[in-house]
This record gives sequence, structure tokens and C-alpha cells, in this order.
Amino acid sequence: MIKIAIDAMGGDFGPEPIVDGLVAALRSNTNFTAIAVGKKEELLNLIPSNFLSRIEIVDTDDVISMTDSATDALKRKDSTIYKAIELVRNEEADAVVSAGHSGASMSLATLRIGRIKGISRPAIATLMPTSENQNTLVLDVGANVDCDAKNLYEFAVMGQVYAQDVLKLDEPIVGLLSNGEEESKGNEVSKEAYQLIRKIPNFAGNVEGSDIFKGSVDVVVCDGFIGNILLKTAEGVADTIGTIIKKNLKRSLISIAGAVLMRKVFRNLKVRVDYAEYGGAPLLGVKAPVIIAHGKSNAKAVKNAIFQAITAASSNLSYNIEDRINKYK
Amino acid sequence: MIKIAIDAMGGDFGPEPIVDGLVAALRSNTNFTAIAVGKKEELLNLIPSNFLSRIEIVDTDDVISMTDSATDALKRKDSTIYKAIELVRNEEADAVVSAGHSGASMSLATLRIGRIKGISRPAIATLMPTSENQNTLVLDVGANVDCDAKNLYEFAVMGQVYAQDVLKLDEPIVGLLSNGEEESKGNEVSKEAYQLIRKIPNFAGNVEGSDIFKGSVDVVVCDGFIGNILLKTAEGVADTIGTIIKKNLKRSLISIAGAVLMRKVFRNLKVRVDYAEYGGAPLLGVKAPVIIAHGKSNAKAVKNAIFQAITAASSNLSYNIEDRINKYK
Repeated sequence: MIKIAIDAMGGDFGPEPIVDGLVAALRSNTNFTAIAVGKKEELLNLIPSNFLSRIEIVDTDDVISMTDSATDALKRKDSTIYKAIELVRNEEADAVVSAGHSGASMSLATLRIGRIKGISRPAIATLMPTSENQNTLVLDVGANVDCDAKNLYEFAVMGQVYAQDVLKLDEPIVGLLSNGEEESKGNEVSKEAYQLIRKIPNFAGNVEGSDIFKGSVDVVVCDGFIGNILLKTAEGVADTIGTIIKKNLKRSLISIAGAVLMRKVFRNLKVRVDYAEYGGAPLLGVKAPVIIAHGKSNAKAVKNAIFQAITAASSNLSYNIEDRINKYK
Repeated sequence: MIKIAIDAMGGDFGPEPIVDGLVAALRSNTNFTAIAVGKKEELLNLIPSNFLSRIEIVDTDDVISMTDSATDALKRKDSTIYKAIELVRNEEADAVVSAGHSGASMSLATLRIGRIKGISRPAIATLMPTSENQNTLVLDVGANVDCDAKNLYEFAVMGQVYAQDVLKLDEPIVGLLSNGEEESKGNEVSKEAYQLIRKIPNFAGNVEGSDIFKGSVDVVVCDGFIGNILLKTAEGVADTIGTIIKKNLKRSLISIAGAVLMRKVFRNLKVRVDYAEYGGAPLLGVKAPVIIAHGKSNAKAVKNAIFQAITAASSNLSYNIEDRINKYK
């Protein structure tokens, strides 16, 4: 049976949404157990007693806060995230979920669990909504600010394997983010990466920013600097559209009535763009599944992050990444 | 009196929207005249006779098409865009507007009109809508795919001067696009650029993708690879939200009724995000104002692009860029 380690205290809102999410996950999937790392007393107060048989607690109360540096985190061996990751390193758990300090989670996972053979740098992947009822996996969205062509090639392979093994897509198509679709487009690094990535199957060539949201491809590869900017840009545009609509609404009762009638449409839209629907972002390239959830995760996001961890832990993700990474070189 | 040269044939839809936009501009601003470059016969058919006194026509029928390479464009001295730019080079016109091949316009402007002293690479700037009733100027959005720190510094100065002289902002604030707000964030190039740009007044430091649409700063600086991706991402997100809303609408009559009541709100939103409201994108760093309009420009976009050209030509833009570029080094 799959066992998931979870940093129960790391999120912005303390242990409550984490435990709630974990309990919701346990309720709807009876095929896993969990190890919750956090202050035992607090966690026991939050966990309904009938779930205690499926949740082991590792007691500790040191939490890496968002203002701590990732480097400091490496020394705080009693912190919730350190202990959660150590459980995976020691094979006491199959995967780890954390809504805590993402830099700390990333560094600790890379150093303590270790990289898959052939991967020079792990990457964070995230799902973006499209206008079709599917999503696009984008990586790297922040782990690696400066990347060379080889890094981008590795991201392409890892993304494709994840899409196949965890998202269960058949022959996922990979695109390289660029400033135009033609092969001649790109900056120095992306042009060099194009020549490496073209060797993998189902490579669609260069894609543009808009392709992510059209769903033209299944996986989009970029460096972590651009990935972060892209993510924040997308959030910014969506927020701004919402703000402009709300501001204009206030000016007219008729429009407000319209918005009330349209509320189901807006609710559906919200569901499509709500990160909580996707859960967390997998850190790809480490030897065991590590799911990094948003610091502001609610119970639903935590539940979905746990489901992602379970699917990844039940797959041959690491094995297949290691197998493929040298195949197309 | 300001004289604007216009490539009358370069747009995707031929001369009609260009001439209509020009006539609309002449109608509402009596303080300029124009030189339209294109097939005389065709243009005469489109221009109302009472405007002929304010439009000079330079007759030529060679048009650089979107599939031609920018390098070829340098040799086709009879093309509409070549001739329009030559009019500025020869000081027969004060500024040029083109909705034609943007790569050709850029190369020709840089080589024939020439760079401002101290500028190593001209950049394309564009206005992005924010949730406040103002816009953010972003540059570079595509002219320079690989940039070094010095290029980014130049973009910062040019953007600030443009915001002051043409957008008429008082002490415009400049931000450097990065993957986080802290000074420690950034990739190698942006960190080096930070140290150069920090010397200019009203530098806000690093900003994130979402800041562009919040209007936290007036000018956002990035390289042309990222700028292009950012622009297409923003368009992609806006389109996708529209598509998701429309798809959901179809499922319910009540929602459709709501949308009808909300139509004024949607119209206002459309105005805020419509590129035609802003006209074209200025190519900054060349000795005279060059406005690059969207290939799909309608008459309104052309009119607004012409207004931008007039404001730029009436300002001390080039002089001020040259003056400031060495000031903070």
C-alpha cells in the first residue's frame, strides 16, 4: 500500500487545511496511508479519530517559515519538511507532499532524496488550464533560473514521461517555448535546445505563449526564469480581467443582474482556472515523487496534491525518466 | 507642421484600413499632413477628394509580404516600407507609421534612419492594459532576442523617456522584470542589469509578471524573447477566458440572458484590452519616431498609431534619450 509523507505544518494557514485535505483524500481513496509530520498535540486535535488508524504522526514543531532561507533549511533537521523528506529518503514513505517553503522543499528533495541518474537539475512542473477541457504541463516554472540547452532537453524528457505516466496521456506532444513557431526562432539557448529536443518522439517544435492556453501541445518547456514570469503573467491577466469586470459592474444595476444570471458560467470558469483543482506542482528529476503545493493551499488543493503523489508513486516515473533520458541523445 | 510618412499598403488587409485610419486622423487633427506610400491609382480611389490637399502620394506598388525575409527587404528599394522610411531619412517627413512586415520596418529603420548615439540596439515598446485606468509600457517585446545587461539598461532609459515625453507621465517609475521582487532574484543577465538600472531615477527594482497588469510601475524592462512570450501569454489567457465563458454560455438560456444584461461591461472590458486603442508599438532608439502597427490593424488602430507618431514627432524624444543615456553610467 502506498504511503504518503506530508509536511502537516508548512502551509501559510497552518495545519488545518493540510489535515482537512489529507482526511478528504483518505476518505475518497482507501488504498493509501499517510505519515503526517507536525506537532502531535495539534494534529491529534484536528484528525477525526476514525482516521487515526491510517495516519501515523511524526512529532516535531519546527517549521521553516517563508522568510527563512532555503540554505538554513538544510541544517534544520527537526523541521517538518526535513523530516517528511527524510521519510522518503529512508524508504519509510513513497512520496512527499509539502505546502511549505518551496525553495527548502526543492533543495532538501534534491540533496536528501537525490537526483535521478542522468538528470542534472530537477524542475518544477505545473498544469495550466486551456480552452479545451484539458491542461498543458509547463516546466520549469521556477527551480532553475539560468538553464543551458541540456537542461531544457532534460525538462522535455521529464515532462513527456510525467504526462504519460501520471497524467495518463497517450503519446504526449512536447513544444519548446519560443518567440515564434518557425525553427529559426528562438534565443541562443533555445535554438541549441531545439536541436537536442527534436530527437525525442512527438516534438512539435517551437510554440508560443498563447499555445499553452490553446492546448496545442501537452507539454511546454522553458527555463525557470521565463516559467515564473509566464505563470505570474497569466495570473495577472486573469485577475485584471476580473477586476475590470467588477469595477464596471458596480456602475449599473442591470449589469449586476446580468452577473447574477451568469453566475454558473463564472463558477465554471473559476473551477477551470483554480489551482486547487490541480493540487500541487511535481518536482521532476528526483528519485521519488515530491509534490510542492501552493503555500496558500486549501483542503481541496491538498487533497488533489496527495492524489498526484499517489498516482506518481504508483507509476514507474523515475525508472522511465532514467530510461529515456539517454535514449535520444 | 508635422508630416507623417505612412506605408499605405503593408497591412494584412491592404490599403483600405490604412487610408481610412489616415483620413480619420486628418479629420480630428488638423495640425499635420501625410505622405502615403503606395499604388497611386488605388489610393486615389480610397481618399475622399477633400483630403487630397493634405495627403501627398508617393507612387509605388512593391509591397514586402509577411513571408518575405527582413534581409530581402533591405534590397527592395521600391517597396512601400523602404520608401516611407527613406522619406524620414531624407527629412521629408518627421515620423513613419507602418502596419507592414515588422522585421523589415525594424531593420530598415535601424539601418536607414540610424540609431541614436549611445543606443546599441533599438527596442519595440508596447502598452499593456492594467486594472487601474492606465497602462504599462513594456519593452523590448521582440526586437532583440538575446540581450546583455547594457541593452536592458538602455531599454530602461528609453522607456522612461518615452513615458515622460510621449505618454506625458510625470516621473515614470521603471521596473525590471524578474522571477521575484527581491534584489537577489533574477537570472545572470537581469542581476547584472539591475546594478546598471539602479542608477536611474525612479527605479522600483525587480517586478513580477503580475505587476504589469496591476500597474505597479509605468515601464517594465525585459529582453525581446521574454517580451514576446509575455505578450502572447497575455493574449492567450484573455482569449481562453473568453472562449471558456462562451462555451459555458451555450449551455444555458439564463446565462445568455445574463450576458445580454452584462454586455456593456463586456464592451468596456473589450475596449480596455483592445490593441487598436493604443495604435502601434514605437521602435525606440532610432533617430526619428517609427511606429510599428499590428499587421491586422483596423482604421482605429491606424488612426491611433498616427496620433502616437505625431506626439512623438512633436516631442524631444530622440534628444532626451541621447542626453540621458550617458547620464547615469
